[in-house]
Amino acid sequence: MSSSALFADLYEFTMLRAYFELGMDAQATFSLFVRNLPPQRNFLIAAGMNDLLDEIENLRFEPPQIDYLASLEFSSKPFLDWLANFRFSGDIYAMREGTPFFENEPIMEVVAPIAEAQLIETLVLNQIGLQTILASKAARVVAAARGRNVVDFGARRAQGIDAANKGARAFYIGGVESTSNVAAGQAYGLPVAGTMAHSFVEACASEMEAFRSFSDVFPDTTLLVDTYDTIDGVKKVVALAKERGANFKVSAVRLDSGDLDALSREARRILDDAGLTNVQIIASGGLDETKIDELTSRDTPIDIFGVGTDMAVSSDAPALDIAYKLTEYAGEGRMKLSIGKRSLPGRKQVFREFRDGVAVRDVITRHSETLAGVPLLQPVMLSGRRGAAQSSDLSQIRAYAKEQLAALPQSLRALPSHERYDVAISDELSKFERETRERLID
Amino acid sequence: MSSSALFADLYEFTMLRAYFELGMDAQATFSLFVRNLPPQRNFLIAAGMNDLLDEIENLRFEPPQIDYLASLEFSSKPFLDWLANFRFSGDIYAMREGTPFFENEPIMEVVAPIAEAQLIETLVLNQIGLQTILASKAARVVAAARGRNVVDFGARRAQGIDAANKGARAFYIGGVESTSNVAAGQAYGLPVAGTMAHSFVEACASEMEAFRSFSDVFPDTTLLVDTYDTIDGVKKVVALAKERGANFKVSAVRLDSGDLDALSREARRILDDAGLTNVQIIASGGLDETKIDELTSRDTPIDIFGVGTDMAVSSDAPALDIAYKLTEYAGEGRMKLSIGKRSLPGRKQVFREFRDGVAVRDVITRHSETLAGVPLLQPVMLSGRRGAAQSSDLSQIRAYAKEQLAALPQSLRALPSHERYDVAISDELSKFERETRERLID
Repeated sequence: MSSSALFADLYEFTMLRAYFELGMDAQATFSLFVRNLPPQRNFLIAAGMNDLLDEIENLRFEPPQIDYLASLEFSSKPFLDWLANFRFSGDIYAMREGTPFFENEPIMEVVAPIAEAQLIETLVLNQIGLQTILASKAARVVAAARGRNVVDFGARRAQGIDAANKGARAFYIGGVESTSNVAAGQAYGLPVAGTMAHSFVEACASEMEAFRSFSDVFPDTTLLVDTYDTIDGVKKVVALAKERGANFKVSAVRLDSGDLDALSREARRILDDAGLTNVQIIASGGLDETKIDELTSRDTPIDIFGVGTDMAVSSDAPALDIAYKLTEYAGEGRMKLSIGKRSLPGRKQVFREFRDGVAVRDVITRHSETLAGVPLLQPVMLSGRRGAAQSSDLSQIRAYAKEQLAALPQSLRALPSHERYDVAISDELSKFERETRERLID
Repeated sequence: MSSSALFADLYEFTMLRAYFELGMDAQATFSLFVRNLPPQRNFLIAAGMNDLLDEIENLRFEPPQIDYLASLEFSSKPFLDWLANFRFSGDIYAMREGTPFFENEPIMEVVAPIAEAQLIETLVLNQIGLQTILASKAARVVAAARGRNVVDFGARRAQGIDAANKGARAFYIGGVESTSNVAAGQAYGLPVAGTMAHSFVEACASEMEAFRSFSDVFPDTTLLVDTYDTIDGVKKVVALAKERGANFKVSAVRLDSGDLDALSREARRILDDAGLTNVQIIASGGLDETKIDELTSRDTPIDIFGVGTDMAVSSDAPALDIAYKLTEYAGEGRMKLSIGKRSLPGRKQVFREFRDGVAVRDVITRHSETLAGVPLLQPVMLSGRRGAAQSSDLSQIRAYAKEQLAALPQSLRALPSHERYDVAISDELSKFERETRERLID
């Protein structure tokens, strides 16, 4: 589990050495937040915390890693000895995975001796950023599907293996039903799905022969019908049903190209006319939430959507303006004043107010305040050990996300939407921000 | 190294079982190619082959993976026994890493018993896609920098750890000078770079104190000057130089916000006026090739660009239309006829013609043809073992990429460019495509 100990920017290590040499070991708070939502997002869904906490709890430097750091010549023997004994001993507060959140809201706060909180910066940003982007994208795709199932087909187009596997997890949190990615299935216990590709059809002597052979091995399979001509492929499925009679168990056909709206209607008609009303239609090929929304708004006969590339990389918003900033050190509020880069000083809390079960407003407060509403930041790690407060059961996280999404105002969940959710800053936090700013400008 | 054995779509395994049950074990060829270049790319740079070949050579199924597959209930004991003994035994032909390439050109061909070539599909697409996207993006950023150094600051914004580490490698191939990512530095022997973040400055009693302390520990460091006010920060560096006299060794200042053009000019003037002409200027913060091009076209005094988010995810083209398609099985050409998804049948070669050292045309041919020009596909794995033909030395790959990029027509390297490079298909391959199509339609 120490694969990630070196996954940090070099400046974390140079700063760590400076803290070490200068005896700077007071308690610090770092806040994780997204400064601006991407243009096409009205909310984001917090995700990735459980995987991250596992990594942090097990963060260790092994001898080859220490040797490598020594080779970089920015270091000293006492500092490297200190690193060799490194354990994360701090506290972490976070929103539950699956919580929708908004601009400038802390989604995680790390309270630890400054070096410990600093070391994990790159890991925290990378890992929470990844799953949050992807869970948020998935929620849009699932909303567009209007109750039809969505399957993750994105492993081949994801940006690397980590993104593919953790993406499958994040998509599941966002409401996707299953994944084609077997490694992710094993890692996270996700439902996996998939049947055949064009190559199988092409390798057989004919499409008909391919359908016969494949359904001999897997009677209740899905048959891919667009290798040569989609409608012709559907007719072969009908022919197969006639050949097999009561032994015909094929559960679905898959369309992967062309005009999915027209082809799915024609396929449905042909299947229904042959009495194959139980055979479902799966569609894939270049789908995103906009295309799915178009299809479902016209009441498409497609039952299941396979979504790859566009969801896999969140193509319309592939990165977040996510920041992990020092907000307190040695008991004093800290912030930078750089142009366009506001950060709120001190430890904080976020209260979400509901009215008739609908979220109406969030208020970002100082940590010590108690306001009306649900406090979203909860302890998830204390003294370097994971707490029991945050469930790591993925089905529970998914159910929680679904419930919390349903509690957002309907106008905010539409795609596209130009609604903005109301996020306020408490008077006390505003006052503290002003005081901190004035202290720094002096 | 067997971490990736399950990194496949479930349909690879169901098809493998079908091939196994049906006795389909003839030789197949799969071709890897990009169907359409992204709108803002005139060429792509092949990358990721060496990492991929390592994975393929070591692909094994361990007992926990076999157990997991057994639990999915699509399987059979004889099939799982066969998987437990799986070794990739095929041949692979590929373009050298660092080779620029174009639409529809095979960049890799896998020749193996069909099950073996099929199993690696997802891994091949994901891994070559990742490094190719990122190396191609980096080449644009480096071109825009017009000879100034570019440093990869993208680890925190990359889509996961695999993308960050392999991205650092791909950026280096594309011409980037160094990376801030220590894990990538260790994994690939890349030069690493980095010094301090805002948090260090904020944690100290004052910015001046931060500069003093940090340069005590690291005399020739870079100082980050924009935590509170950029120009004020630069003036403090000048004050530090006066305090330290001959002991002042600070090598650079870094600007991370605001109007980088105006601020860098003002910073240069202040530094030069103080006789600090050797202190370089590093700029970072939301940079991409367009912004860098604007800066360098106005002869900016910035010496080094730190580039993060935009390069890390290739934000304007985060995925490729990359495909891995069966083109031959049991000695016969194979292809699909799906709408808009052309694939060229059979084993192939690509010849690149040069005139006066400039690439003027590529011709995609059948494997057996010999044309004028340089044949770009070379054997890199034979009978499952890596050949010596493809260098895995990263400096050599980088130098080769630089040389091959320099040999592209100047018009093609401009950003933006609407030039198209000439890619032809040989008469013999066209004839074979036609014949294969006719055979399939019959």
